[in-house]
Amino acid sequence: MSKKIRVGILGATGMVGQRFIQLLDGHPQFEVTALAASERSESRNFADACNWKLSSPMPSWVKTMPLQACQPPLDCDIVFSSLPSSMAGTVETDFARAGYAVISNSSNHRMASDVPLLVPEINSEHIGLIDVQRKNGQKGYIVTNPNCTTVALVLALAPLQQAFGIEAVIVSTMQALSGAGYPGVASLDIIDNVVPYIDGEEKKVESEPQKILGLMSNNSVIHADFAISAQCHRVNVSDGHTEAVTIKLKKKTTVSALIEVMENFQGEPQKLKLYSAPSKPVIVLSEQNRPQPRLDRDLEKGMATIVGRVREDTILDFRFTLLGHNTIRGAAGAAILNAELLIAKGYI
Amino acid sequence: MSKKIRVGILGATGMVGQRFIQLLDGHPQFEVTALAASERSESRNFADACNWKLSSPMPSWVKTMPLQACQPPLDCDIVFSSLPSSMAGTVETDFARAGYAVISNSSNHRMASDVPLLVPEINSEHIGLIDVQRKNGQKGYIVTNPNCTTVALVLALAPLQQAFGIEAVIVSTMQALSGAGYPGVASLDIIDNVVPYIDGEEKKVESEPQKILGLMSNNSVIHADFAISAQCHRVNVSDGHTEAVTIKLKKKTTVSALIEVMENFQGEPQKLKLYSAPSKPVIVLSEQNRPQPRLDRDLEKGMATIVGRVREDTILDFRFTLLGHNTIRGAAGAAILNAELLIAKGYI
Amino acid sequence: MSKKIRVGILGATGMVGQRFIQLLDGHPQFEVTALAASERSESRNFADACNWKLSSPMPSWVKTMPLQACQPPLDCDIVFSSLPSSMAGTVETDFARAGYAVISNSSNHRMASDVPLLVPEINSEHIGLIDVQRKNGQKGYIVTNPNCTTVALVLALAPLQQAFGIEAVIVSTMQALSGAGYPGVASLDIIDNVVPYIDGEEKKVESEPQKILGLMSNNSVIHADFAISAQCHRVNVSDGHTEAVTIKLKKKTTVSALIEVMENFQGEPQKLKLYSAPSKPVIVLSEQNRPQPRLDRDLEKGMATIVGRVREDTILDFRFTLLGHNTIRGAAGAAILNAELLIAKGYI
Amino acid sequence: MSKKIRVGILGATGMVGQRFIQLLDGHPQFEVTALAASERSESRNFADACNWKLSSPMPSWVKTMPLQACQPPLDCDIVFSSLPSSMAGTVETDFARAGYAVISNSSNHRMASDVPLLVPEINSEHIGLIDVQRKNGQKGYIVTNPNCTTVALVLALAPLQQAFGIEAVIVSTMQALSGAGYPGVASLDIIDNVVPYIDGEEKKVESEPQKILGLMSNNSVIHADFAISAQCHRVNVSDGHTEAVTIKLKKKTTVSALIEVMENFQGEPQKLKLYSAPSKPVIVLSEQNRPQPRLDRDLEKGMATIVGRVREDTILDFRFTLLGHNTIRGAAGAAILNAELLIAKGYI
Repeated sequence: MSKKIRVGILGATGMVGQRFIQLLDGHPQFEVTALAASERSESRNFADACNWKLSSPMPSWVKTMPLQACQPPLDCDIVFSSLPSSMAGTVETDFARAGYAVISNSSNHRMASDVPLLVPEINSEHIGLIDVQRKNGQKGYIVTNPNCTTVALVLALAPLQQAFGIEAVIVSTMQALSGAGYPGVASLDIIDNVVPYIDGEEKKVESEPQKILGLMSNNSVIHADFAISAQCHRVNVSDGHTEAVTIKLKKKTTVSALIEVMENFQGEPQKLKLYSAPSKPVIVLSEQNRPQPRLDRDLEKGMATIVGRVREDTILDFRFTLLGHNTIRGAAGAAILNAELLIAKGYI
Repeated sequence: MSKKIRVGILGATGMVGQRFIQLLDGHPQFEVTALAASERSESRNFADACNWKLSSPMPSWVKTMPLQACQPPLDCDIVFSSLPSSMAGTVETDFARAGYAVISNSSNHRMASDVPLLVPEINSEHIGLIDVQRKNGQKGYIVTNPNCTTVALVLALAPLQQAFGIEAVIVSTMQALSGAGYPGVASLDIIDNVVPYIDGEEKKVESEPQKILGLMSNNSVIHADFAISAQCHRVNVSDGHTEAVTIKLKKKTTVSALIEVMENFQGEPQKLKLYSAPSKPVIVLSEQNRPQPRLDRDLEKGMATIVGRVREDTILDFRFTLLGHNTIRGAAGAAILNAELLIAKGYI
Repeated sequence: MSKKIRVGILGATGMVGQRFIQLLDGHPQFEVTALAASERSESRNFADACNWKLSSPMPSWVKTMPLQACQPPLDCDIVFSSLPSSMAGTVETDFARAGYAVISNSSNHRMASDVPLLVPEINSEHIGLIDVQRKNGQKGYIVTNPNCTTVALVLALAPLQQAFGIEAVIVSTMQALSGAGYPGVASLDIIDNVVPYIDGEEKKVESEPQKILGLMSNNSVIHADFAISAQCHRVNVSDGHTEAVTIKLKKKTTVSALIEVMENFQGEPQKLKLYSAPSKPVIVLSEQNRPQPRLDRDLEKGMATIVGRVREDTILDFRFTLLGHNTIRGAAGAAILNAELLIAKGYI
Repeated sequence: MSKKIRVGILGATGMVGQRFIQLLDGHPQFEVTALAASERSESRNFADACNWKLSSPMPSWVKTMPLQACQPPLDCDIVFSSLPSSMAGTVETDFARAGYAVISNSSNHRMASDVPLLVPEINSEHIGLIDVQRKNGQKGYIVTNPNCTTVALVLALAPLQQAFGIEAVIVSTMQALSGAGYPGVASLDIIDNVVPYIDGEEKKVESEPQKILGLMSNNSVIHADFAISAQCHRVNVSDGHTEAVTIKLKKKTTVSALIEVMENFQGEPQKLKLYSAPSKPVIVLSEQNRPQPRLDRDLEKGMATIVGRVREDTILDFRFTLLGHNTIRGAAGAAILNAELLIAKGYI
């Protein structure tokens, strides 16, 4: 077997950083060789600096790894980034300029015209934007995955866009606590409560899907032209964003046709049999009270969107409920799948 | 002062029955003289049969009251009913035929053409349907209040319908556990979870508002003609239903005009200064992360709809979040306010 | 009526500070005239600086009050302090030296030999220590109330100590989130979880009761001589600490005698009819599944200890469960009751 | 490889029944060939009758299996029973008389003098009681595992009893919702709450350990002679019982000696390398805020007791916190380990 890709993780001690470590533990293509975190963690080893919050134990190989500063050089071939927005902008650019492939979960560069906002099942051809970055003189490059709420949504929208065309989407979300990082949401704010506001979230959900579902043309992405309206709420759930979707399509169709195209949806990760690819990117459950975060978030190891309650709508055309694991497919898992695609396509 | 109205409670031991007792404790116009519950509770006294679940202590006067069967005669002038649907249909009819005024929180008779579905701020003139019941030879009558989710919604819709006309409403709800009664939702079903289904709920929310906002004409109600689409979810909250609303209006208007008509909304209970009337039926909060159930459900003693995040929508016209206390304004408090209106209008 | 005492609140924006404001709203003897908080809040008004977390609305009089620095002089006669331990030590001393009566909820000075650790029902004579402070040349003085877990426990222990003598106490606690302040416990740390550790808590619970139950002799307190063993846990409850107590007594007695002395326990606040005094400091419930935080924490307006399940023990002598409201009787309410006693005794 | 043992499950649709199916899925020694449940489930297939509540999906082989009545004959060699106490007494006896090995998780027969209350790490020699049952003319036999709270506790006690002798144990528990089955605890009873009572639980915890730690002599078990005092509480946790333990030992020893004997504890399952045996039956964590149910309950696949905070006590000798997975090691996993031991010892 060929040698493994050497990976650095920026923001290694955070909630998403921990998921990176968990998902890369035993990964056949990657080996973690560098960890970086914010200044107060530097020069401590990982076990000392990290408040590990996952129910699977911290892998033993990571415990004694030192935490380094978030700046190049790091001893690795590529970096996964889950830095907070306040840092990610400049740090990621610094790494890309220094020649690293930066596979980022942060929002800063997602909407830049030369940065792929990649969901491999949907828009693998967007990796062509990497060549634009290189033409602009950057030695490395930045590739991003969407916001956690966006990923779950857009996986369900993609087959509908392909088959019927989307005209409008109204979505109301019930989002998990882990989406806010750690310490994140105070317990006193969520016990016996719902918080009907998540800073910056609605804007992301309303703009990212159109880029993801956009078409490459002349080295740029022409955004899809439908509108999205999002109302985002925090609920008392650890992992798993639930979304109530109402949708207007361009072509007339039926509930059973909707279910069929979602269930049959396949993309490059499935064709290429990428290691982290779900066998089915969209699973449609038939029970009337599903999906539920506690019962369904771990289906397909957290890499699929789970859909339920598909039915006609009285105002737009159809409605359904969907669920996605926000720190796996919505963050670390998405970035890792992106990197696997980049390997398959020869960019790593 | 005149003598108090003597009240019987059907379904006295349930969650709504307990709220009736709590809200009638010290009420200036009503005195509880009879309690009825399902067969297994009969012939026990209230304290023995009732699993009291409210944080204010059980009033001492109710403890030794005997539980009787749910059938006439009961020693009272009117009955409040919070019976389960499986019983309410025939039992309430029996009481109405026997000459009692039946003020019901149950769903069975709500949509009957001669039964008022009453929200006193909105459609006090619908009590004219009582005369239709009487013409049909019934000695007593039935008056109903809406489903808990409907009440909170329709209080916010009424001023918009009056001022601008409503064309369509899309609503996604996050509903409290107490709405399912006791024992209701199993703890294992809701810990770290959301359940995207509540049996029968969506149909009620999609059909009751049009009757409530309908116009009396020739002794019947002409239902309002807008469509509602509802997706209902159960979340881990004790009391207080949160609803994310998107709305299309007939006239063009502005966010500030929407807020103004909601905040200035007043109806018969306010004019008549009914005992349980909120001073403002709709309160609009300006903080971007409100309303929240734990912080706002007890405003106006749980009798108002709390609105927040009023803003333009990208697909329909406007969107906002609202909150209502589901067992107070959404159930027992609604029925009591109905009874207070009936007194003021001479029907009791 | 005489003029009200003018009160300053140190740490006004925190969880306990908010309870001070809530409980002083409408208080017949006190008027809040000054608010102080940490530096980042200074020079803003209260409504802007405070993240209000109580379900009763912020009183309107407090909204526009300016926040001042935590140092003398403040425009008031006495100060209530709920400062964090990192600040309370020096700040409270500064105010006491400047002549203010400092009624503190902080732990810093509790165990000082000349500072009363006051529970008015139990040791009102300890206020004699104020004279010691004055003899030592301090113009003002400091009076403290115990840790939240201690107060609830010691109210139940006091009548037992008086009647039977205590030899040993083993207590295991299940403590509420509000005890950690705001933001305090991260939601991801407590959802579907118990945390078996609260920093510094066990030591306080194991040492404060002996001072509180100590006897004044020659201007100092001789601590009671029994041992306490505490294991403290955080559970997913908003307000209300539950404690499982096992106790060894010096005299033989019976369960019914234990219940009787607890239920009949009365102290100075009851005799003096202090405004915030519970009519019964200890309430014993007979239902086998009580006390429960959500149902019982607001009994006596949160100022009593609620006891249940009193029964014989197989190893020590007796065991029971108790509950106390940690931010009312366990913090702000305790301090206010202390101040009311000081007025009654002529110290304010 | 030899043929698999054919297994029937009594009470297959309940919480523990589901764990049996999950844990037996892919088990090398057992094959599920019969499912039985209460009358209302009979003659339906498993998928229709079972409200599956585990986060791993229902195995496909079980979906179409028919549910049969809980009475012999069933098409299997042995039966696992997780019937409710109201049924288990007679049904288990019927199966034992009919010649089946009954491996029971129910409490009914646990304390019978000829029934092993088996924890294979501790008292594997107690299976000699099977011979007593057979001598009494029973064709089959009954073997039981302890109550969920007892198992977790006794695994930690066993090495202490062996090394130092136990004189007294005081334990306060914080127990998970799944321990009450489904639907079990109502959500309204546990949101923002603790319930300080679990019917029948304390008695079990106070009596079972002495039998488990008892010595076989002359075909009967001489119970160990220490006393246990238990206070049991329900908290808002899905799986994992936490227990605060205070203990008095017969010999003097140290904290580090305690930790050492617990960490080094090994029994028959480890020596025999039984399939479901944890490599370490007791794990001692050194972090001061552990064990925590959400983070630690799945260590050793839920088959170990996790101990933390071992320290000296001020009244008895030592105290510590422990955690056990109540539906794995506390129920289905315990029964399966018992069956594995019985195979190894030639009883199956």
